[in-house]
Parts: sequence; structure tokens; C-alpha cells
Amino acid sequence: MKIAILLYVDMTALDAIGPYEVLSRLPGTQVLFTGEMRGPVLTDTGFLKLMADYATSEVSDADILLVPGGPGNEAVRKNAKLLDWVRMIHEGSQFTTSVCTGSLILGAAGLLNGLRATTHWTRMEMLREFGAEATGERVVEQGKIVTAAGVSSGIDMALRLVQKISGDDLAQGVQLGIEYDPQPPFDAGSPEKAPSHIVQLVREAMR
Amino acid sequence: MKIAILLYVDMTALDAIGPYEVLSRLPGTQVLFTGEMRGPVLTDTGFLKLMADYATSEVSDADILLVPGGPGNEAVRKNAKLLDWVRMIHEGSQFTTSVCTGSLILGAAGLLNGLRATTHWTRMEMLREFGAEATGERVVEQGKIVTAAGVSSGIDMALRLVQKISGDDLAQGVQLGIEYDPQPPFDAGSPEKAPSHIVQLVREAMR
Repeated sequence: MKIAILLYVDMTALDAIGPYEVLSRLPGTQVLFTGEMRGPVLTDTGFLKLMADYATSEVSDADILLVPGGPGNEAVRKNAKLLDWVRMIHEGSQFTTSVCTGSLILGAAGLLNGLRATTHWTRMEMLREFGAEATGERVVEQGKIVTAAGVSSGIDMALRLVQKISGDDLAQGVQLGIEYDPQPPFDAGSPEKAPSHIVQLVREAMR
Repeated sequence: MKIAILLYVDMTALDAIGPYEVLSRLPGTQVLFTGEMRGPVLTDTGFLKLMADYATSEVSDADILLVPGGPGNEAVRKNAKLLDWVRMIHEGSQFTTSVCTGSLILGAAGLLNGLRATTHWTRMEMLREFGAEATGERVVEQGKIVTAAGVSSGIDMALRLVQKISGDDLAQGVQLGIEYDPQPPFDAGSPEKAPSHIVQLVREAMR
């Protein structure tokens, strides 16, 4: 199983690293962290660089494509070369996936037209501009395109992919291996669950 | 708030990146990814390098120290220079924290003697060898030392830290910002919850 993860400047690290930590435990897997060029890629906080060991010009196919989100999605959506690459990898992929605003990149590549899809809860309107039917579900499967909601949702998406690819036992084994038994101090992880003043606060911060 | 995250060869990326994604949203925060030397650090899968922008020799204090886990913890526990550094940062820290087998490093540095602490569920016996009272709780606070269970638990720990440092509103805001509303396909994230054949399978794989 060959997994290509797109890295780009101003991406959100957890969007990629959450699913990577799950998917890398599929048997016989190879993960290619792929940037427009090889080299360190600065993420959105300015504090962390992830290394792209491959340039997009070196990766012409993958079984799973993962496109993370982050403020840098805007620049990627204007980058014809990267959108061409996304379309090319999608052509031959078994699964084409995104986390958070990574779905806006899939949308800009023309892959979501007429499909149900999701993104970060503050970006639903933008997703609709690409012809997608935006939904608040955490993970949305439409054929081989699988989109996940904000940042941390990539972990749930990846566990679903492991289940689809290798079955229930491995999915549970990976979940237990990474001890994914969430116990956040609050139940405030979605706009339906968080207090309304928190929803407003985050909405303003994300503008 | 100055946060030092120790990077080392064969660490598990999510142990560091989960809490980083949460803690970096504290106001006025600076995160220092710190390795024994500056440069890319290869993580345990062999597929991902995280960049250490600082060498331990360049970081002499931090408000929060975060020590991730991973198979490389064994080499760190034998590295007197790194253990000295951990002790030095701990001296002046507001919080000294670990995720997964990172607590074995805190233990080897002599910081857990007589304290309650946690680690990955397969490594409880090793934790006891360092004089800690090992517990299966997901996050264990003992004064300023906060240890978290396996891999993904660092996200929960970091949300608890944000709550302690900046209050309920910010903790909920960060949770909503990263849309941490977990919906794994199974409820198998702890040895108490997973089917027994899965527990055995993972225990053998982690040997």
C-alpha cells in the first residue's frame, strides 16, 4: 500500500500526522511525504517543519492520497501544478482523502462536483462553492473519495480506511496500539456541542 | 509560554504533534522543537522526519517540557546528556509532561520516584521499575509532572493543560478549533474495552 501525503507551507500538522500514524500501521505500507519540492516544509504555527522526502515530480501514483488542510490551502488552490498532481494521483488511487480544508483543494482540483463532502465546520460555505454538497458529518465517503472534518478528524477517517482495507481486527488493533480512547476534559468538539459563545469566539478567530 | 518538545530518533510522531497542535494555541506561545542536535529527526516508522530547530545545548529553560514516547525511548534512557537536559529543564518548568513511553524517560531521569504516573498500557511494568506507581488512567497529574497514556492521549493531556493554564473557555475553544469530537469506528482504545484477542495481538506486536 503506497500512501502519498501532500505537504505544503502553512498546512496544519495534525491533519497529516493523525492519519499517518494510523495508516502507516497497514501491513506492507510505504508512506511518501511529498512536497512541491523536497525539503523541510514550515507548518501553519511557524514552529514546526515536516520533511518532504519526495517532490511531486517524483511521485506519479499512490494507492492512497491524503491532502491535509490549513491556511496554506489557499495558495495550493491557486497552484496549477499542484492541482494537476492531485488529479493525476487521484486517477489511479484506491482512495483519495482529505482532512479539514484539504477538501477545498480537492474541490479546486474539480474532484468534488456534485459529491457529498466535509471540511472544517467554519468553511462549509467555501466547500459549496466547489459544487460539493457540504455536510457536517465527521467522515464522508463518496466512492473512493473520503473527506474528513476539522484537524483531529483525520484519525477517525484513517481508522475507517484501515477497517475497509484490512478489516475490523486490524482497525481495532491499531486503535488499541495508539490507545485512542478519547477523554477530553469537555464535550465541545463540534459547533452543536460547544457553548454558543465559544462557537462565536472560534468563528471570529478563524476568519 | 515557552514550550520545549524533545525530538529523538525512533520517537512516535503523534505523541509530540497531538499536544503541539493544542498547546501551540495558548496565547503568546513559542514552541521549540529540540533535538540532541539541530536537523531532521527520523521517527519510528522510518517514513517521517520532524525538524529539530534547536539543539538541547541551545535550550536552557522552558515553561512546559514535553517528552514524547516511541521505541527510541530506550536509547534516550541510556543517554546521560539528554537525561541531564531533561532534569535541567524540569528544574525550572511550570509543567513537565510526557506521552506514552516518554514517561520511561522521565523515570530514567529520576523524576517519577514515588509518584503516580502512566505510560502505554503495554509498558506499565517498566514504569514501575523507575519507582513510579503505574496507573491505567489516561492523564495523571502529580504536582507539575503530568504523564499521559499511549500515543493519542497527548491530545487529551494538552487540553487539560490549556484548561489549567488559561481556563475553560480557551480549552473548549481549542477543542472546537481542532474539531476534537472523536468518532472512531470501534470502542477499542483501551485494553479494558478491546476484545481480548485484539489485546493479545497488540501485546505480542509491541514486544
